[in-house]
Amino acid sequence: MSSARDAPDVTVGWLSRGRVELTDSVSHRETCCADYSRKTADIELGPTAAFRKMDSKGEKDGSPVCVHNPHLDALKDDILYHFSLGTASHDLPAMFGDVKFVCVGGSPWRMKSFIEYMAAELGMEDPAAEYPNICAGTDRYAMYKVGPVLSVSHGMGIPSIAIMLHELIKLLHHARCTDVTVIRIGTSGGIGLEPGTVVVTKQSVDATFLPKFEQVILGKTVVRNTDLDQSLAGELLQCSQELNRFKTVIGNTMCTLDFYEGQARLDGAFCSYTEKDKQDYLSKAGAAGVCNIEMESSVFAAMCKLSGLRAAVVCVTLLDRLKGDQLSSSHEVLHDYQQRPQTLVSCYIKKQLKAKAAGSRV
Amino acid sequence: MSSARDAPDVTVGWLSRGRVELTDSVSHRETCCADYSRKTADIELGPTAAFRKMDSKGEKDGSPVCVHNPHLDALKDDILYHFSLGTASHDLPAMFGDVKFVCVGGSPWRMKSFIEYMAAELGMEDPAAEYPNICAGTDRYAMYKVGPVLSVSHGMGIPSIAIMLHELIKLLHHARCTDVTVIRIGTSGGIGLEPGTVVVTKQSVDATFLPKFEQVILGKTVVRNTDLDQSLAGELLQCSQELNRFKTVIGNTMCTLDFYEGQARLDGAFCSYTEKDKQDYLSKAGAAGVCNIEMESSVFAAMCKLSGLRAAVVCVTLLDRLKGDQLSSSHEVLHDYQQRPQTLVSCYIKKQLKAKAAGSRV
Repeated sequence: MSSARDAPDVTVGWLSRGRVELTDSVSHRETCCADYSRKTADIELGPTAAFRKMDSKGEKDGSPVCVHNPHLDALKDDILYHFSLGTASHDLPAMFGDVKFVCVGGSPWRMKSFIEYMAAELGMEDPAAEYPNICAGTDRYAMYKVGPVLSVSHGMGIPSIAIMLHELIKLLHHARCTDVTVIRIGTSGGIGLEPGTVVVTKQSVDATFLPKFEQVILGKTVVRNTDLDQSLAGELLQCSQELNRFKTVIGNTMCTLDFYEGQARLDGAFCSYTEKDKQDYLSKAGAAGVCNIEMESSVFAAMCKLSGLRAAVVCVTLLDRLKGDQLSSSHEVLHDYQQRPQTLVSCYIKKQLKAKAAGSRV
Repeated sequence: MSSARDAPDVTVGWLSRGRVELTDSVSHRETCCADYSRKTADIELGPTAAFRKMDSKGEKDGSPVCVHNPHLDALKDDILYHFSLGTASHDLPAMFGDVKFVCVGGSPWRMKSFIEYMAAELGMEDPAAEYPNICAGTDRYAMYKVGPVLSVSHGMGIPSIAIMLHELIKLLHHARCTDVTVIRIGTSGGIGLEPGTVVVTKQSVDATFLPKFEQVILGKTVVRNTDLDQSLAGELLQCSQELNRFKTVIGNTMCTLDFYEGQARLDGAFCSYTEKDKQDYLSKAGAAGVCNIEMESSVFAAMCKLSGLRAAVVCVTLLDRLKGDQLSSSHEVLHDYQQRPQTLVSCYIKKQLKAKAAGSRV
């Protein structure tokens, strides 16, 4: 069977918004929100539900969160199963309509800690508040909210974050949110960087260093674009320079399906390669512009782009993979490192809200 | 670049234990525990650490848990980072040396519920016991133990369960466990089966219905065998017949990287295909022997096989995907369904322990 790798070579750098590459019936390249309906040859989606509803009150002035699914309108109750929420059981516009920033990360604990930190930073802290988990009816994900900021855990790996993003995008769509920015905060292995360095992702690349995400649909491979918002990355870097508390760089992030063999670690249950093989592979990654390695950025970039969400990935490096595989820093040092993406993103959100309050465009 | 799909076609049914298919330097088929060291051309692993240690006391009589990693011996402290356990900080043989059965499942809540159920079933129940989470130092996974039974959560999707299995296999190896059986208990979507039917997996197949798992190592694709233990599947089916409380079948399980588009659902944030496309795809899956669809079985089968663990996948179907995508059964009915794999596996474990106590071979 033909696979995505057999498709004609196409330029996959910072494609201009709206460019569409159709290769063949098996493999085609998808790009951004507004072009989704044009790119699939099988059915004509026409205007999406999101765009059809743009004339309703309150949605004219901002960029909506696009779903691209003509079947959703037929659902009386859209159950967001892994959130334990639904359109019939919950008033999603009332609960989430004011959301402007969504921060996502692997660990439920970290996402709770983030919302507590945000509440304090925004002066919305309530000493008596427990910041309840909005998804308390399930243990798949945890979700917290304070003001316009939503904090959601996504577990580990592409499939886990993809389930969360499908339901998050539907949630934001049902809640009629506009102008939403989504930022993944996480941890990663660095390549040639001092541990503790924060990497804002320029492009998410796969294990062959190509900026693409392969989504299997009906058994066939579709190649999706993993571009992230360049201006947002620049604004985050600017924030870090203003903070001046830790080093931040913009670079490519490699996204793998496995933490051990998939990232050339020597400490998994299985390892069929040598230390030299590992060094050669990681050196090639570094030469291709890879600054860090994690496990969610490619599908995150692809899905946010398709739904028109402004998106960024901000990960701290916990170690330099060229020097080792296991974490050697103390618990306290690692804890400090893990705070850095939170600190940076909090700074960015505060700056945006301040600008908005002052009447500027957010 | 060549990919696994370009490799010469090979028979991938129930390969006899030990058969090895080498295709080319990029893509090769891996099989079971004892052959791992022969199959990789780059380095000669020689006897694995597990086999080297087989002469030590207590390990002669049973089948060990194989790691295939010559680098592990050089580690003074092997930190099982996502379990918050390590060889220097924990006495793994004392904590886990008696483990004979490991049950794994996506949800931390369900795996706690399983250990409480097992404790009651084995008569090891302590009304005052809280069954502490052994991995309380992290929120990545949860782990519980009662007697010879370990219960571990694995999150959702192949990457998440793969991280857990790497560390679980190392844990069992470091603990010098022998004759370990690992069973995944979970939920799934059925194809043409009455909801509530339990499926014991014969073979795990991918989204093109082929029994293989593709592992990317150093950027190159390796194809791994997804055979499961036929005799164990048969014993589980026999248990269900003796229980006579719900229908159980043996069949193929499709393992996907995505819950929505990857499983042909019409209710994700994105959907570019029609109801007919979906029905055609699922019908083809059914014709290929697929009884149910989930998201972890392929890497589970592949990794258990490589490490010599006797393994089974036991999932209940929560709905018939030919009839819908969203769950329509009541909370109570779904809860009852989710108990069924636990009930079946508990029955199996009790039977095995009883046979062992009576002096039979377990």
